[in-house]
Amino acid sequence: MERYADLVTHLQTVLPPDARPSLSSSVIPTIIHCIAGIAKALRTSHQVSLAGTANAFGDDQLNVDVLAERTIRDEIARCPCIVTASSEEEPIERPAGKSESNADSEGSEAYTIAFDPLDGSSIIAPNWTVGTIVGIWCGASALHQSPEKKQIAAILGVYGPRTTAIVAIRLPGSKPICLELGLGDSNNDTATCEIIRGKVQLQQQPPFKTRYFAPANLRAAAEDERYMKLVTHYIEHKYTLRYSGGLVPDVIHALVKGHGIYVSPVTATSKAKLRRLYELAPIALIMECAGASAVDPTTGKRILEDPIKDCDERGGLVCGSPDEVSFVLESFGLQ
Amino acid sequence: MERYADLVTHLQTVLPPDARPSLSSSVIPTIIHCIAGIAKALRTSHQVSLAGTANAFGDDQLNVDVLAERTIRDEIARCPCIVTASSEEEPIERPAGKSESNADSEGSEAYTIAFDPLDGSSIIAPNWTVGTIVGIWCGASALHQSPEKKQIAAILGVYGPRTTAIVAIRLPGSKPICLELGLGDSNNDTATCEIIRGKVQLQQQPPFKTRYFAPANLRAAAEDERYMKLVTHYIEHKYTLRYSGGLVPDVIHALVKGHGIYVSPVTATSKAKLRRLYELAPIALIMECAGASAVDPTTGKRILEDPIKDCDERGGLVCGSPDEVSFVLESFGLQ
Repeated sequence: MERYADLVTHLQTVLPPDARPSLSSSVIPTIIHCIAGIAKALRTSHQVSLAGTANAFGDDQLNVDVLAERTIRDEIARCPCIVTASSEEEPIERPAGKSESNADSEGSEAYTIAFDPLDGSSIIAPNWTVGTIVGIWCGASALHQSPEKKQIAAILGVYGPRTTAIVAIRLPGSKPICLELGLGDSNNDTATCEIIRGKVQLQQQPPFKTRYFAPANLRAAAEDERYMKLVTHYIEHKYTLRYSGGLVPDVIHALVKGHGIYVSPVTATSKAKLRRLYELAPIALIMECAGASAVDPTTGKRILEDPIKDCDERGGLVCGSPDEVSFVLESFGLQ
Repeated sequence: MERYADLVTHLQTVLPPDARPSLSSSVIPTIIHCIAGIAKALRTSHQVSLAGTANAFGDDQLNVDVLAERTIRDEIARCPCIVTASSEEEPIERPAGKSESNADSEGSEAYTIAFDPLDGSSIIAPNWTVGTIVGIWCGASALHQSPEKKQIAAILGVYGPRTTAIVAIRLPGSKPICLELGLGDSNNDTATCEIIRGKVQLQQQPPFKTRYFAPANLRAAAEDERYMKLVTHYIEHKYTLRYSGGLVPDVIHALVKGHGIYVSPVTATSKAKLRRLYELAPIALIMECAGASAVDPTTGKRILEDPIKDCDERGGLVCGSPDEVSFVLESFGLQ
């Protein structure tokens, strides 16, 4: 039986006819299958999960990350149209397949995968929700390309009480898609998932039932007056605080609740730390497909505006409800 | 095979000989089994998990809570020494068994269970970690008793990428115990768990690698100068923010990291909202068994000092690293 047959059928229905058949029937199901596999492996990784505590560093932490990295590398090596891959764990673009066979399909549909296998290592030990971030690019490289045109899909895997995923697709000339999937129990050999929300969309207009804020790098506010003032604004206007410190759960919160503002500023004392290729670009695509904005806090430009020149490029992030993002840019003197 | 045989053996080793044999061999394994069952049920509850979104209220939300409630009620009805139970979902003390049989054992070892089946309903939809809170009391009622003497154990179930549990036991005249367990995959019929940490303990002395703060009800700071000043103190002193909005994950974070301060104040605009019987008392016991403090933010008294008179009594909470708790009380003018 075809993996995730219902999802494949759904994607083929909502995407333009004959648009990139391998994307829906092969690349996306492969990544979803990776997420199911990582979820299963994490579920029993009680010992390696000691990483991040006061007593266990280094090797242990690496184990969990490496476990996720290997799961993805092994799966994509078997997907003929994924020709290139790089990740936060191994930030160099290399052929994705173990043999040369993957290169064969470069002509018709060829994809590059850029991924962060397990984001949120600091919150693995306390058993908080963590995630996987994947960007899917057309062609044999994600570097020196227009993110706008070439990064055509992105997927988040969310490992919590359940295993869920956000799939966003934006093909040139067609409507963006953003779905939430609930993954079946991976102990069952049949790879299944259900569509929890066919259209993940941030609410565009007030009134908002609740307004949420997630201030990353809050320590930076100690020495940055603009950031301290912004945080004070949220408190005084009675926004609800939700901040896990994991990029995936923090972003998912806004997507599921329909409102939210995530701020990871760059200040004199707090350097840009989010990877453009493995974190910022995929998150930005998902946000935009869900009617949200994602901008750079130093320039105010869209995250997806400029090509990525190097696998290790970093930046800050302001993303979420469009009006909230505009307000942050105003506060930072950028609009 | 005996359920959680390794855990039972461990407890029998660390507890005084002949001290309450049914507590280690029956009551605690029963609650751990409930947690495994709830974890399994949540894992595939993608649809009921829609609760808490902008579009689905009431009935859906109830479904997930009721599922957890029923799992616990069904299990404890089969544990002869649990004679009484009440929960946040049904806050009235009643016989725990379906028949009269449970009452038989009241003479020797009889226990009352007070539980919050699924804490954190607002963060179920975004798939963040949630939990179960259970207090275990000696005798046929938890009301009008000394929490200090009669609440002899408490358990937290943590539903995240893994299923973990904190078990705290404090028998009169013996050393308190606080363990972290990693639960086996509940698809496997054998009920197993492993001890992740045999001694969960907050670090007592500086230097702290990282200091964490979790400000609950942060909106209250808008109208309470003391709280705003306290939060500003944490930011200016570069504490790391971790606040999920779920009491269980927020408390677990401090327990696993070895440092943390959780503040849920009571102010003019923000009423006491945590249940003393189902949330505050079990959390306070766990905190104290782990070398932390748990006090009332209006009186500065220990949470466990006064008897609980009513199932619906509520309060605020300041808990975590002892020095941090003292600092909060000073800030609030209580020390």
